[in-house]
Amino acid sequence: MGKTKNRVHLPVIVHNPYLGGLKEDILYHLSLGTGTHNLPALFGDVKFVCVGGSARRMKEFIEHIAAELGIQDPKSNYPNICAGTDRYAMYKVGPVLSVSHGIGIPSISIMLHELIKLLHHARCTDVTIIRIGTSGGIGLEPGTVVVTKQSVDAKLVPKFEQLILGELVVRDTDLDYGLAEELLRSSKELGQFNTVMGNTMCTLDFYEGQGRLDGAFCLYTEEDKHKYLTKAREAGVCNIEMESAAFAAMCKLSGLRAAVVCTTLVDRLKGDQLNISHDVLHSYQQRPQILVGYYIKKQIKAREAIPK
Amino acid sequence: MGKTKNRVHLPVIVHNPYLGGLKEDILYHLSLGTGTHNLPALFGDVKFVCVGGSARRMKEFIEHIAAELGIQDPKSNYPNICAGTDRYAMYKVGPVLSVSHGIGIPSISIMLHELIKLLHHARCTDVTIIRIGTSGGIGLEPGTVVVTKQSVDAKLVPKFEQLILGELVVRDTDLDYGLAEELLRSSKELGQFNTVMGNTMCTLDFYEGQGRLDGAFCLYTEEDKHKYLTKAREAGVCNIEMESAAFAAMCKLSGLRAAVVCTTLVDRLKGDQLNISHDVLHSYQQRPQILVGYYIKKQIKAREAIPK
Repeated sequence: MGKTKNRVHLPVIVHNPYLGGLKEDILYHLSLGTGTHNLPALFGDVKFVCVGGSARRMKEFIEHIAAELGIQDPKSNYPNICAGTDRYAMYKVGPVLSVSHGIGIPSISIMLHELIKLLHHARCTDVTIIRIGTSGGIGLEPGTVVVTKQSVDAKLVPKFEQLILGELVVRDTDLDYGLAEELLRSSKELGQFNTVMGNTMCTLDFYEGQGRLDGAFCLYTEEDKHKYLTKAREAGVCNIEMESAAFAAMCKLSGLRAAVVCTTLVDRLKGDQLNISHDVLHSYQQRPQILVGYYIKKQIKAREAIPK
Repeated sequence: MGKTKNRVHLPVIVHNPYLGGLKEDILYHLSLGTGTHNLPALFGDVKFVCVGGSARRMKEFIEHIAAELGIQDPKSNYPNICAGTDRYAMYKVGPVLSVSHGIGIPSISIMLHELIKLLHHARCTDVTIIRIGTSGGIGLEPGTVVVTKQSVDAKLVPKFEQLILGELVVRDTDLDYGLAEELLRSSKELGQFNTVMGNTMCTLDFYEGQGRLDGAFCLYTEEDKHKYLTKAREAGVCNIEMESAAFAAMCKLSGLRAAVVCTTLVDRLKGDQLNISHDVLHSYQQRPQILVGYYIKKQIKAREAIPK
């Protein structure tokens, strides 16, 4: 990575006065720790982190990015760095880290607490983090990719509400707008699929929480559902997923440059069930990987072009 | 399973008038469906469902219960019924189903929506469901097992709050008290480890949400943390985990007889980090499996003793 004399390098920030007092910091859910692993040696060169729900998909991504950057090792099967646990999976190639986060805000928040501490302990700088996921679209052709402008909650408010010591704490869900624009531009250059920028609704449930008619419980009508989704669409919501609010809030607090790129698997105005074929589903799921892979490659090439 | 003429068999209830109108019901996150699988043939005999966060632990449980019931097949490696997805894992032996649910309320709620529909489609009756998990204890020796009396939220209220179509819906978190008492009695008979009954706090976050001092962010003091945990303890809270509220609310709605049995890995009044050895941790994690395995075996024997 090129470094210029005058460039300010941005660290990964933790906000915890107690952390420095720990004899060792055990990143329990990642099966890593400062007492057992040399984190600066293992992770100090990380510049891009991609996160997504499924462990299989995040392994697929590391294989894709290795090929994209021309640094794949045909003998390597990209071992899972977090093999000591089955909670999350982590893969690394060059300056790119790929981590799974499971489903929902509580699951991603544990992973992000430990990932942010990991990047901090490893003294990483200038880190860009992108969530590559799946979502339900509103009024979009399935397969359309959405780059999130702003993450809003189920009441369409762009905030992340948390209970801390039983008290309500509200945090901003701003993402890096410049990064979102660069990703949108990259998709245009690629020209392989349609990508739009819009708001993303983040919910705590997939069925009732997103107004689906096919859960075990549905105590509202189809008309209620359509009213709700139409109201969301009118507020600029292009898609619905389950992690962006915590992701945006936590990345902002730690100074990470963050974006959310999700493919849409269904148009929720037309249906709820995911009944497309496995092959089509897989090709839609690959789109955020292809877009982010292209963007990362472009960034690395541009940085290498800066005189050292 | 013995059936008496006069016994009323309790079905698994869905509350969704739209479900009957579906041509097929795709249980997407379980990679199962009514159009692709004969659910009554595959699952119709299920009487006990055990759920827990980790896929590895739920596979361990099915091996344990198979040995306990004397119906293990030395040649079988207990294939994952949900192998088509990496979101959840499911194993079955005899009348016992073992399913993983990931971390947190959003993750368990997707699994439960699809599991409840599965049990309904399979026409299962008289199903008992038990969550076997891990938790942080309050004022308990690590390794103590807690059978949940009532699940309370981070404000110590025994309710589960959800946003449905953007509106707040509040549901009860009652569990089956008779089942909890039977489990406590079973632990006394077993005599292998200490088990208590108490309230369980269910949070949306592991670090700030549970007052930990070792997350990436901690904007409160150690004194604030202790005040909060002491207040919880005074309200009868014995342990803290991240799924019981949704589990209790959803099982109650579907008429499932439900209990939560969690081991405690740390006494939160004394510390936050999970720094016990892997072997001790593993032995603590096995305790809910041992207790629930013993209980299920006893139940099956008692039912077999009823004249047909």
